[in-house]
Amino acid sequence: MKGLWVADGCVRLRDDLARPEPPPGWALVAVATAGVCGTDLQITRGYAGFAGVLGHEFVGRVAQGSPQWLGRRVVGEINVGCNRCRRCAASGANHCERRRVLGIRDLDGAFAEFLVLPEQNLHPVPDSVTDTQAAFVEPLAAALRVTEQMEIADDARVLVVGDGRLGQLAARALHANGYHVDVVGRHAAKLERLRRLGISIEKQDGGGYDVAIECTGNPAGFATALAGLRPQGTLVLKSTYDAPVRMHPADIVVNEIQVVGSRCGPFAPALQALANGSVVVDDLVDDTYPLDESERAIQRASEPDVIKVQIERA
Amino acid sequence: MKGLWVADGCVRLRDDLARPEPPPGWALVAVATAGVCGTDLQITRGYAGFAGVLGHEFVGRVAQGSPQWLGRRVVGEINVGCNRCRRCAASGANHCERRRVLGIRDLDGAFAEFLVLPEQNLHPVPDSVTDTQAAFVEPLAAALRVTEQMEIADDARVLVVGDGRLGQLAARALHANGYHVDVVGRHAAKLERLRRLGISIEKQDGGGYDVAIECTGNPAGFATALAGLRPQGTLVLKSTYDAPVRMHPADIVVNEIQVVGSRCGPFAPALQALANGSVVVDDLVDDTYPLDESERAIQRASEPDVIKVQIERA
Repeated sequence: MKGLWVADGCVRLRDDLARPEPPPGWALVAVATAGVCGTDLQITRGYAGFAGVLGHEFVGRVAQGSPQWLGRRVVGEINVGCNRCRRCAASGANHCERRRVLGIRDLDGAFAEFLVLPEQNLHPVPDSVTDTQAAFVEPLAAALRVTEQMEIADDARVLVVGDGRLGQLAARALHANGYHVDVVGRHAAKLERLRRLGISIEKQDGGGYDVAIECTGNPAGFATALAGLRPQGTLVLKSTYDAPVRMHPADIVVNEIQVVGSRCGPFAPALQALANGSVVVDDLVDDTYPLDESERAIQRASEPDVIKVQIERA
Repeated sequence: MKGLWVADGCVRLRDDLARPEPPPGWALVAVATAGVCGTDLQITRGYAGFAGVLGHEFVGRVAQGSPQWLGRRVVGEINVGCNRCRRCAASGANHCERRRVLGIRDLDGAFAEFLVLPEQNLHPVPDSVTDTQAAFVEPLAAALRVTEQMEIADDARVLVVGDGRLGQLAARALHANGYHVDVVGRHAAKLERLRRLGISIEKQDGGGYDVAIECTGNPAGFATALAGLRPQGTLVLKSTYDAPVRMHPADIVVNEIQVVGSRCGPFAPALQALANGSVVVDDLVDDTYPLDESERAIQRASEPDVIKVQIERA
């Protein structure tokens, strides 16, 4: 089988991979479309020390599995817990210490012809959602994690820091939920895609926000988000990246800021938002490459003005 | 009047200070006993850029004020808001942008013969609480702020990082409230004072804590607290200090940690805990100096094995 393989910070397309065998309770999924995420790019630079097939945003069709799943078009949650520990019992797989994570930790990912996942991780995709859209379910769910983690007041002012992949989805998800959202970013063309949807752009680093969501994946974004908050405001960290941030604890303590780490989110509302059109994503796709050209897809996704690159089964 | 004056990182006892004049609604308080806090030491090294009389932990007697306060023994909340802004209306003086803070910002402090504070900041001290104990109300209130900010489950495991001034009070306050508390610290003699009260000592850096309270005021403490937490645990920052911490956002994001800044707290429960003896503080006082020797008191408070130094009106 073909797949985009990463190891030791080196990425290459291989055609000698064994098709994965689904264990009992798992499904084999023929990947249709997969999206390149910032975390994927981080992994190609050594983040998380992952070796295997890259990719975790996907839609595909079940090629092998139990009768109720066989042939269905699906997306899949990426965390696979041990199902035996206290954390799996209390809050699911996302924080299991022994978890495997699709394309990130101990489990081959979606930039390949096939992947395997437990059937309990799968969600059927309604016909009204295209493959292009469905490949956004995972990152959109991550954006929706913010409102799952905290009660944001109806009249809250929310600042999204960053106009890239995560920032676009966070801003669109909160805007769709009726919140006042301002976005601060550095890329005119990316900001324009938000402006077209009626999302407001904060040109100067504003202040007094109730919630600031850091989506840039760089230390300057952390500083911007912190500076934007009112006292007792909430700074949500969404980006996983390896660069250290210099933080002055007194800034957090004196203003009693809450910093909230936020990772994977709920698939059902993400699918619903795509199905009913409340969150638009089609304009985010800059380019689509066949799996055979997936090395180029990774390069393209690293370019500064690009938001989303997708990889399709040829 | 005499007072310990700090300016530009230089501390000296002055005897040429004007006795402060209380504006309408304020009281003049003759300071009886005041405690030296870690923040005071930070200020002597330039933190907060404060120039004026140092000190904010005190007990004293009202020497001038309205009839219901005159002659009463009092402690006082240290934040003085503008009383006109939205923040003062919403949540009191603590986060007013124009606030003055006793001995910290734009308001002369407690290491002097007299201080002034708004009468609404004052709390009468019951006779059963000694001056030595009453001077702990302000830092104990800050320790109790943690339980005011968040619901800690009854069966939570709490790690207090640091065995100094703040760590002692945080551990004692939570222990008194029935929580399981472990303390990690580097000073055998300080830890011994906790062990004597039945508070357990974590010799090795443990893990899996629900809540970790960083009370060391140094970057290593931040790392210890973070490493001690379970996924989705809460890291409380209590120390105000200027040194930057190197934080890896991925550590916060992947484990969905909450970091909560925590500053000033409620005086009433602190007074109550001292009055009913549920929080013991007498053993924390290493030395007491008259105001005339307050320069020496600051030096003594900087020594590594010292927890609390108090300054008394001669």
